[in-house]
Order: sequence, then structure tokens, then C-alpha cells
Amino acid sequence: MMNYKRYKRIPVVQFPERQWPNKQIEKAPIWCSVDLRDGNQALIEPMVVEEKVEFFNLLVKLGFKEIEVGFPSASQIEYDFLRQLVDRKLIPDDVTVQVLVQCREHLLKRTFEALEGVKNAIIHIYNSTSSLQRDVVFHMDREEIKEIAVSGARLVKEYAKDFPGKITLEYSPESFTGTELDFALEICTAVQEVWQPTPDNKIIFNLPSTVEMTTPNVYADRIEWMNRNFKDRDSIILSVHPHNDRGSGVASAELAILAGAERVEGTLFGNGERTGNVDIINIAYNMFSQGIDPNLNLENINEIIEVYERCCKIQVHVRHPYAGKLVFTAFSGSHQDAINKGLKAMHERKSPVWEIPYLPIDPSDIGRKYEPIVRINSQSGKGGVAFIMETYFGYKLPKGMHKEFADIIQVMSEKKGEIAPEQIMEAFKINYLDKKEPLHFRKCKFEDLSDSDNSFDTMVTVLYTNHGVQKTFESTGNGPIDGVLKGLQKELGISIKVLDYSEHALGEGAHAQAAAYVHLMDNTTGKTVFGVGQSSNITRASIRAIFSALNRLNEE
Amino acid sequence: MMNYKRYKRIPVVQFPERQWPNKQIEKAPIWCSVDLRDGNQALIEPMVVEEKVEFFNLLVKLGFKEIEVGFPSASQIEYDFLRQLVDRKLIPDDVTVQVLVQCREHLLKRTFEALEGVKNAIIHIYNSTSSLQRDVVFHMDREEIKEIAVSGARLVKEYAKDFPGKITLEYSPESFTGTELDFALEICTAVQEVWQPTPDNKIIFNLPSTVEMTTPNVYADRIEWMNRNFKDRDSIILSVHPHNDRGSGVASAELAILAGAERVEGTLFGNGERTGNVDIINIAYNMFSQGIDPNLNLENINEIIEVYERCCKIQVHVRHPYAGKLVFTAFSGSHQDAINKGLKAMHERKSPVWEIPYLPIDPSDIGRKYEPIVRINSQSGKGGVAFIMETYFGYKLPKGMHKEFADIIQVMSEKKGEIAPEQIMEAFKINYLDKKEPLHFRKCKFEDLSDSDNSFDTMVTVLYTNHGVQKTFESTGNGPIDGVLKGLQKELGISIKVLDYSEHALGEGAHAQAAAYVHLMDNTTGKTVFGVGQSSNITRASIRAIFSALNRLNEE
Repeated sequence: MMNYKRYKRIPVVQFPERQWPNKQIEKAPIWCSVDLRDGNQALIEPMVVEEKVEFFNLLVKLGFKEIEVGFPSASQIEYDFLRQLVDRKLIPDDVTVQVLVQCREHLLKRTFEALEGVKNAIIHIYNSTSSLQRDVVFHMDREEIKEIAVSGARLVKEYAKDFPGKITLEYSPESFTGTELDFALEICTAVQEVWQPTPDNKIIFNLPSTVEMTTPNVYADRIEWMNRNFKDRDSIILSVHPHNDRGSGVASAELAILAGAERVEGTLFGNGERTGNVDIINIAYNMFSQGIDPNLNLENINEIIEVYERCCKIQVHVRHPYAGKLVFTAFSGSHQDAINKGLKAMHERKSPVWEIPYLPIDPSDIGRKYEPIVRINSQSGKGGVAFIMETYFGYKLPKGMHKEFADIIQVMSEKKGEIAPEQIMEAFKINYLDKKEPLHFRKCKFEDLSDSDNSFDTMVTVLYTNHGVQKTFESTGNGPIDGVLKGLQKELGISIKVLDYSEHALGEGAHAQAAAYVHLMDNTTGKTVFGVGQSSNITRASIRAIFSALNRLNEE
Repeated sequence: MMNYKRYKRIPVVQFPERQWPNKQIEKAPIWCSVDLRDGNQALIEPMVVEEKVEFFNLLVKLGFKEIEVGFPSASQIEYDFLRQLVDRKLIPDDVTVQVLVQCREHLLKRTFEALEGVKNAIIHIYNSTSSLQRDVVFHMDREEIKEIAVSGARLVKEYAKDFPGKITLEYSPESFTGTELDFALEICTAVQEVWQPTPDNKIIFNLPSTVEMTTPNVYADRIEWMNRNFKDRDSIILSVHPHNDRGSGVASAELAILAGAERVEGTLFGNGERTGNVDIINIAYNMFSQGIDPNLNLENINEIIEVYERCCKIQVHVRHPYAGKLVFTAFSGSHQDAINKGLKAMHERKSPVWEIPYLPIDPSDIGRKYEPIVRINSQSGKGGVAFIMETYFGYKLPKGMHKEFADIIQVMSEKKGEIAPEQIMEAFKINYLDKKEPLHFRKCKFEDLSDSDNSFDTMVTVLYTNHGVQKTFESTGNGPIDGVLKGLQKELGISIKVLDYSEHALGEGAHAQAAAYVHLMDNTTGKTVFGVGQSSNITRASIRAIFSALNRLNEE
């Protein structure tokens, strides 16, 4: 029995006015990256300045317009980094840098020194407001905690007066998720009264789930409650800053947007303290997948991953939404089959809309490739194998042949585990294309016996070997296949019927090879089998297919 | 500009009767592990039989009562695995094994063969029901799709009649999230009419988000809609099977539970196709953290991780909720300080309730340790360093000393990145305990001059070296510290004041060492500095502290 009784339940919000579950996300919020602060501070090996610069440049390239660059008054490294950004003119005019600072005069003074020369800055002040932290950490009552925030806002206002650039104030009642709603509102309102924001010069109120404490609907209720109760709402930007302790950071952000949040602070791939901050890339792609402009340039996920993993020394998990190595694979046979058919239907219908089973987005829209989508293992169905043969190698296996070949692959994969496309092609060669013994076709000659379209008008001469012994026969038929098959039946004393035949070019142009498939039945035993032949000469390809099938029949 | 216009918006459910946002999770659902099927089939290297057996035994040990063991009619390996479970008597009487199978007679027949000797089994039939798959994959209308499910249920009923064990039917309208609600209900109801479940013999309707298509509140709406509209609701177990394409699988499961789901299918750590199935461990710990019995034995997360990583050959991410290597760390100084104070308050108040800032649960409740909670880097505050010194090494640094020592560590960490506890101890030795030059205390003698408590009653004789030259002095004072300090001032021609003094035992017993801390001020310059001394003799420890402080003063 686990020790669960020492934990308290977080109550739901009694909130009959709740509207957010009726809403849907309509547009991307303002994104604020906190990678260089909240993310970086949680790395085992924090970034060195050059890595920070590279990461900052990536964030700018991705289209972030607000970037928290550090806590310059708390660390010389972060101070120096901000100075580098200024001195090397790396901050574009449309990008606002954000700096975190506690509500203390000497820290604020140093922060403004660090900002010298910055055109647009957000000063992000915070203090912890939860009932727990007031009690065990600060030993202060509500009024005293409020005074920290209010005096901080006053100090920022004072310093901002003499600062030549534009200063926006952001205030975070840190540990908001553990703070009584009325007190969170009270403290924000007190800060608002000091700062005197207007619709043209808004204040940012950032309501973090510094620790994710319950299901994301409760966070959304709290955000909607604040959203409805703020004074002068149009002078406020409502920001959220979810963490991921319960594994629902993304949901918390999304439901908070439904509830009125206009701005999201987070990081690439959810880096950050403990379980991390919310993953902005994930939310942005979620919006993208619903036809909403994410307002970020995320066309090349691989480039983002490369810089992230190198600078942060943290790997993106193989199942990470959109970014993980395995997320555009499908191992299940029925999934593979459905993807295959979905792609075909979309192509045939020339549909402008992406609607493919099991693939929420087209991997190529974010710089991923189709190739790794389907992998074959012992669970894969016939569709998957046929899909690989077509998309990787251009062989359009007739539908009737899917199962026969998939069974061969299944036996292989039960021995070897996952089978790579190259191994599938190898098996195709061994079992079909190169199935040339004991009956080995060598040469042939065809001569039309008349110039009419009547039947039995082609004379066939075939040279072949049987267990290495050279043989030849002549025969007639209504075409090469018929003629060859008739001759072979007589030669070998067997009775065979063609159930199906198909042939297609592999690639384009005069030198293209053709692949021919024949489905034969042994009239004596009722056994059926496919054979495949290939040649730049379509007739030779067909005859090879017949020999391939006969050799396969012979084996069974 | 990203290519977002080719994607469609999934609409919200118009559902004014919605009740789930008012609910809270009250108890754990029925857990069904699909690790050995959905999870295993998505592995690059699927488990071999012995790994499957080990994994099955782990699941049993963790307390899973329903375990999907495979798709035995689709793969010889899965057939053989189920036979091994039976033949080796590995299935406890209170564990039900579940097998997946399509609604086809030859597959069902083979499935029942595989189940021979099993006491309790769930036959899990499914077919894809979404409008998209009906259209592009099956080319069937609603009636034809329904007939697949109905005839499947009929076949199971027929085979079940002659089966000696107990058979429960589970039906999944696969791709439920893309299926019209009225059709999902219609197809379930049709299956229900065939199977004729009762409150004593329920049917399981499993409503998967096979692909996560929108925000989790919409999934919850759909589940609540089904929950309210099912016929004979008390004959049904409502099951969910979320995937994680949008990174909100956990939220989907939790909101679905609020909406009426009684059973959750998922995997350990969210293994499974693409982004994975929902992580049952994550949801269970979320419940645990809210004082709800998770009905699973998850006291030893490290053991679970070990088996999982070995069998699945997939790593648990360092930020994975509850399980990741970094999730019980705190890099931020203010977090560390708050954790430190929270632990102290909980201890002092002997509180039975776990309420610590930034630590949703006590790591030791799940077999994790405190030690790695706090790591020190350039962002860490003074509280973190003091916490390490106390929890790792037993030194209770006086509050006034926290900043002085933390500044030393901060300078180190700005050069070296993260600092391990051992390095902090090393710095403590170099800067305090071993600060023995140029003034090196050697020996002392104390003699009380009277037996009253009057002042100036201790005669002190001290032997020391100054730059290696042996010196001695005699002095008097109201105690050893006062006496030594007075003597040293005269010897060295300096003026010093003691601001603070404290001392404590390191460990227990007569041989325990004592650590002494003195805070000195140079009356001439106003500089203040701490010194630390250690000895099994408390007086010697104090005098060493004075020498340590003087040597430090000398350096500045």
C-alpha cells in the first residue's frame, strides 16, 4: 500500500460561470521564450556565452518576439551575455528582451545597468504568493507579501523614468497555483495601480503554474476567473507560464488559452526546472495541425533539434510529439495499410486538405521525411510491406500478391525483429527476381505467324536450362506468355493456369526497366503462386516472371 | 509562413449539459496495461519471449489486474508467449489476460486456441469507425462498418459458449476521436445487443483517442456524452485508451475520468505507437500526489525504470514526470531556499501532510532519494549551498554565513558550471577548515583563576606559529574565545570584535567532532568575515575558528 494518505487534494474551483470549455483556440498567443533563463538554469551544464548567442539567434529566426535572456543582476554570466547581445547588436528592433529580477533596489539598479542601450525591454518582477510559501518560507502575511510586489513596481517605475528605451512591466505572483484567487487578484491589482497601465501601454500579468498541482481544467478555471475579474482588462496582457510536473503542461497552456490567456511563456522541447516548462514547439504544432498560423517558423524541426541538443546537452525523446525520431513511424500493419490508402485517396482526389489516418500532420511540412514512416516488424500487415516496396523501390505489387510476400517478411521478422526496407528488397530479390533455379530462362525468339489478330499466331523459341542442362523448345500461342507457358507445360509434363498478370515500368525513359508479375495456379494441386521478372525488355520480364513462379511452385 | 491552411479544425462539442469540469477524481480507475501489445509492437526491437515474461511478471507485481498480452492470431511469437504464460502458470487467478483480435472467424478461432487453459480472459475486438477511414480505407458505409462489429461480437459469443474460462468482451470503435458521436453510440449499442451484458457480467466499451486530434477537454466532452447516452449503463465498463500525439495524453485520460471513464488502457512511461500510449505510471502518481490510492504498487520507481529500459531499449527522459533523473532536482536558488525552509517547517511542526514548495511529492515515497534534489550552479542561491552543507555533510552554517560561502561557490560555478556536493565540501575545507596560514594555532592551556562566575577569570596560554615562526602568549578573558582574542589582538596589534558565535556537534556520541563558527569584524576597516574550526574538543574547535577567521581577514 502506497503512502498516499499524507497528500492533500487540491480542490476544484466552484465556478458555474465557466465558459472556456465552449471555446476553441482561434489564434496563436504571444510567445515568450524563457529558454535562456528558466531553461538554461535547469541544465546540468549551463550554456556558455557563445551557446547562448547561438540559441538566441535561433529563437529570433524561429520568430520569437519576446525572449527572456536571464537574471542579469544575479549572475555575472547573465549580465555579460546581455551586454554581448547589446554590444554585438544582436537584438532586432522588433524583438523585446525580458529580464527577470526580484523586487529589490540593488538588483533593479544592476538590471537597468545591464539593459543600457536596449530599445525594448520587459522587466519581469516576481514574488512568491502562495499560502504555503507565505507561511513556511517568508513568515509574512498577505499585506507584507503584497508590499514586496508594490514596492518592486514602484522601484521599476522610478528607474524606468530615466531609461531611454521602452520598458514594459511584467509581474508574476509566483506559485500562483497555490495562491488564493482573491489574493492573486488583489496583489495584481495593487501592482496595476502603481504602474498605471493603459490599453496602449499594457502591463503583463503572468500567472504561472510554477508547480503543476492538479488537472489542467482547474488551472483553466483559475485563469478564466482572473480574466473576468481583472480591472481595466484591456490594459492587461494575461500571460501563463506552465510547468509540467503532472505531465500536462501542454494541456494547461491550451486550456488556459481557451480561458483567456493571450501570452505563453515556455521553452523549446519543454526544457526547464524538474519536469520542465511547457513546450512551446508542441503547442505551436498543435495549432498548426488545426489550421491555425502558429506565428513561428517551424518548418525545419531537425535544425531546431540539432541546435537544442547541442547547446542544452539534453536529447529530445524518441516519442516527443512532432520531434521524436519515432513519431512519424507506424509499426502496426493496419495503421500502415490505412496510411497507404489514405495517401492514395488524397493523391487521387487531389485534395488540398491533409487527412491521413494516424498522421496528424504531413511530416514534410516540418522538414521530416516520409521514408521512416513505415517500418516492418512481426506485427506489420501486408499493406506495410507493399507500401515499402512501392515507396522505396517502385515495385507496384499486385494486390493479390501482398499477403504472399508479407508472409515471407513476417517469418523473417519473427526471427530478426524489425526489418529494414533494404532487407525487404533483399528478400524480394531472393524469393522472386533471382528465383532462377532449377528452371533458368536464357534466350527466346518470337515470330508472328500471321499479320492478323487471330489466335495461335506467335511462334516461340525458348532456350533454358533445367538443373544446369541446356534445353530448348518451340511452341505457339496467342502471345509470348501463352506460347512460353504452353511449351513449358509440354516440356515439363505439368498443367498450369495464369490467374493474373501485370507489368509496369520502373522509372521513366527508354532505358527504364519493367517489372512483370504473374500469378500461376498448378491445376493438379490447386496451389497458387506469384512470380516476378524484370528486364528492360517487357517480354523478357514476363518470361522471367513465369520461370520465377514455376521455380517457386516447385519449392512448395 | 508555415503551410497551415491545409489542415482542418476539429470542432468543439456543443454540450451545455457538460458536468465533468465540476468533478474531481475520487478513485483510481481499473488499469489495463497494453505494454505487451500496443507498447511492444511499437518498439524498434520488440521484446523476445523471455523479456515479455519478465515484463509480465513486473506488471503483476505492480498490481495490474488486466494485462493485454498480444494479438496471438496475428503473430506466432505472441501466440507462443501466451502459451508460455499458461503452461508456466504465470497468470495469477486474480489477473485477467486480454487479447486483441479483429472481427474475423479464422482469427477468432486461433485466438481461442491460444487462450486454452486461461481462467479469465478479455477478448478485445475492434474495427475502425471514423468517417475518414470508412471513406478512404474501407470504402464502406455506416451499416457495413457496424456489421463488422456485430458479426464479430456474434462470433465471440459463439466461441465463448464452449470455452471453459470466463470471457469478457471488449469492443473498441477504433479511431473513436474521428467518429461521429451518434455513430459511435449506435455501433456500441448494436454490439451490446448481441452480447447482452448485465451488471454482473459487464461489457467493456473502450473509446480510444487512437490519434489525439484536439484539446483534451473535447475528448472529455465526447466521453461524457457517451457516458450519458449509453443504454443500460450499469452493464458497461467505460474504458479509455488515449494516445499522446498532441502531448496531452495524460490530461485526456484524467479529464475522461472526470467525464465518467472507469478504466484506462495505457503503458508504463507511455511506450506505444508514434508518441506513445498514455503513461499509466504518470496518472497513478498524479493521483497519489492528491491523496488518492493509485491501486498500484509504485513504491520503487527505479526498479520499474530498470526493467522497462532493459526490455524496451528505450530510455526514460530526464524530465519525465516522477521518473526522470532531473525531476527531483532544483537548480534555482530561490527554489532551493524554499524547499529547505519547507522541510524544516514540516519537521518542526511534525506535520503528517507533505507540503513542500516545488516538490509535489516526497521523492522517498517512490524510492527516489533526497540527495540529488539540490544541485548547485551559477544560478543557485545561498540557501542551496547551505542546504547541501547541512544535508550532505552535517554543517549547520549560521544564517549570516550563507551568503559569504555561497558567493565563493558562485564564483566557482561561473567558471566550472555545475558544482557537485563534494566540490562544495572541498571549497569549504580550503576556505574555512584548512585556512591555517599564516596564523597557525598549535596548542593551548586554560586555567580558571577563580571558582566564581565573575568575568576575566580564565587564564589562556596559546602556542601558535606566524609564518612558521613559533610564538606564544598568555592572556585572560571571560572564557577561552575572549581570552584568545584579547591575546591575539595584543600580539598582532589589531582590533577585532566577535559579532556572532555558534557551535554544534557533527554526529553523535563522545567521539563526535564539533564545528564552531565565529563571525569577526575588523574594527579598523569594518570588514566582517566568518571562520570555521573543527575538533573533537569544543574549545579547540572555537580557537581554530578564530584563527580561520583571522587568516581570512588577512587575505581580503
